Amino acid sequence: MVKRTDPYIPGEQVNDPTVLKLNTNENPYPPSPKVLTAIRQEAEGKLQLYPSPTADDLRETIASYFQLDKEEVFVGNGSDEVLAFSFMAFFEPGEKIRYPEITYSFYPVYAKLFDIPFEEIPLEEDFSLSVEQYFGAEGGVILPNPNAPTSLYITIEQIEKIVQNNPEKVVIIDEAYIDFASTSAVTLIPKYENLLVIQTTSKSRSLAGLRVGYALGNRSLIDALIRIKDSMNSYTIDRLALAGAKAAFEDVDYFERMTAKIISTREKVKERMAQLDFEVLPSEANFIFVTHPIYSAQFLYEELKREGVLVRYFNADLIDNHLRITIGTEEEMERFLDTIGKIIRIT
Amino acid sequence: MVKRTDPYIPGEQVNDPTVLKLNTNENPYPPSPKVLTAIRQEAEGKLQLYPSPTADDLRETIASYFQLDKEEVFVGNGSDEVLAFSFMAFFEPGEKIRYPEITYSFYPVYAKLFDIPFEEIPLEEDFSLSVEQYFGAEGGVILPNPNAPTSLYITIEQIEKIVQNNPEKVVIIDEAYIDFASTSAVTLIPKYENLLVIQTTSKSRSLAGLRVGYALGNRSLIDALIRIKDSMNSYTIDRLALAGAKAAFEDVDYFERMTAKIISTREKVKERMAQLDFEVLPSEANFIFVTHPIYSAQFLYEELKREGVLVRYFNADLIDNHLRITIGTEEEMERFLDTIGKIIRIT
Repeated sequence: MVKRTDPYIPGEQVNDPTVLKLNTNENPYPPSPKVLTAIRQEAEGKLQLYPSPTADDLRETIASYFQLDKEEVFVGNGSDEVLAFSFMAFFEPGEKIRYPEITYSFYPVYAKLFDIPFEEIPLEEDFSLSVEQYFGAEGGVILPNPNAPTSLYITIEQIEKIVQNNPEKVVIIDEAYIDFASTSAVTLIPKYENLLVIQTTSKSRSLAGLRVGYALGNRSLIDALIRIKDSMNSYTIDRLALAGAKAAFEDVDYFERMTAKIISTREKVKERMAQLDFEVLPSEANFIFVTHPIYSAQFLYEELKREGVLVRYFNADLIDNHLRITIGTEEEMERFLDTIGKIIRIT
Repeated sequence: MVKRTDPYIPGEQVNDPTVLKLNTNENPYPPSPKVLTAIRQEAEGKLQLYPSPTADDLRETIASYFQLDKEEVFVGNGSDEVLAFSFMAFFEPGEKIRYPEITYSFYPVYAKLFDIPFEEIPLEEDFSLSVEQYFGAEGGVILPNPNAPTSLYITIEQIEKIVQNNPEKVVIIDEAYIDFASTSAVTLIPKYENLLVIQTTSKSRSLAGLRVGYALGNRSLIDALIRIKDSMNSYTIDRLALAGAKAAFEDVDYFERMTAKIISTREKVKERMAQLDFEVLPSEANFIFVTHPIYSAQFLYEELKREGVLVRYFNADLIDNHLRITIGTEEEMERFLDTIGKIIRIT
């Protein structure tokens, strides 16, 4: 299958602590202190034993958070693995799937690897998405909500229309950033057998370093994912990640406080960026997607990098004059705004 | 791909601490204390950031242990993931691969999933393997050494013959148990571009709970594995597992002492089992494979289970009168020998 690979390239990961990293949508806050306690406990004396192959404990915890059954929850080694397994489980060679032309750039990578044909559906000029274009897709639909890197959210009513209009195919809603937006499509799961919602602990639960993603959906969809997983790797999540993710789900208060903080910072940054003449898309994610009428995105990316601030620049059609900027702490965003303000004024 | 799945079923994982678990070939000793220190350090303050997508640090450490270059090392989420990626990278639909008829039962699972045809090569009656039968394989060869569940080892000279006689195809040697045997095929890597050696930290390095496996081979083979991985999941190993596995590799002394202890226990258990009239294959693994002239394997498995001792029984052709028994600590094996001794005498 190597000849069909066209690998995804993640944002730069740097180790320099003086660099302000606003390029991979990580959470600026550490996970709940209860996560560390759980990891420390789990590390004592059990590492020589395999983790649970069924991850029942973590699945129970996630299920109860979403008021679902354990059998409606699949867990994997990051949501990228869950996405890859979903492509394997639900999409078929010979049947065209649909996803937005501008979206998470891992989708075409999976599609090529597994020989799944695809149609990339253009967005409107303002990057908004018309749901009708996703009706009656031959092989299924995959859609991030909020979309990345645009940061735009579509309502649960719009999602429901897409699901209703693909009754024989699986519709995957990739909700990596949903906790920074309004309503998740999870509440539709009891009504639709063909809806799979994928989320991650990497963003809103501050666990990018632990690699735990999950899918929520009808039992038959979850069973299919389990069959794929058990045909690839019996134990995909290690003991420490299982324990840490469980603790993160249990500390609802901490999760809600940190998420609210990021949303509040985001709203302030949006305003300040507008004052600097940036056009800022109405983000419902933990990042913003911006463009400037005078300064090119590539120029700003490079100048920011020179000043020790990393943001994400995509050298790709339609979005190569935009920057994707992760929302950090209040202090980090002050430094960012200060730096970009100077670049714009000095130049 | 769900219709091609025929999932692997791992050994039972039980949580009852009174049960003596000798059924999944885990190490009875905890990992080096340095592993815990490394994990604790890594857990402080970095969990919200992605791990290194290239895992350079761990790859450097493994490379230096084996006197290879970092570019000759691939790391993955357990050796099962490394095996799955290897099937994807090196074996093709339409070209028959070969592996032993009795072997790690995950191989046919991968082959079916990726639509790779296979020939299962019969072993001799004593479970030994004739290398000539692996020469000129149409699609490549995969072979565990020592073999599982038979525990039998073939020499590096025999491995070399198989590699030499498949010059255009990849030969994968799955060395999950090699540290309990004599020589690894790793020393052949500089001589052969078509040899891939896969190992794991789950057995000899007591890290089954952390999920870190690795492949060693020519750069072009490692590059192919990286392309597959980067088309599936950018970050397959979490921060804690990267740090823990690195520390385990660095504590060579601890690793050597624990491995020697298990080998010494194994030799004693072999003798004691022979005294109980068991036929014990000449194991070079951290488990033994045994049969009794009077008592059936299934009977012994069930009686042992009733007494709180779990061993592995395979309800499969040719091996359904054998038991695979993991080597535990000296004390654990005393309990095992005592229990099986009573079963045989009482019945």
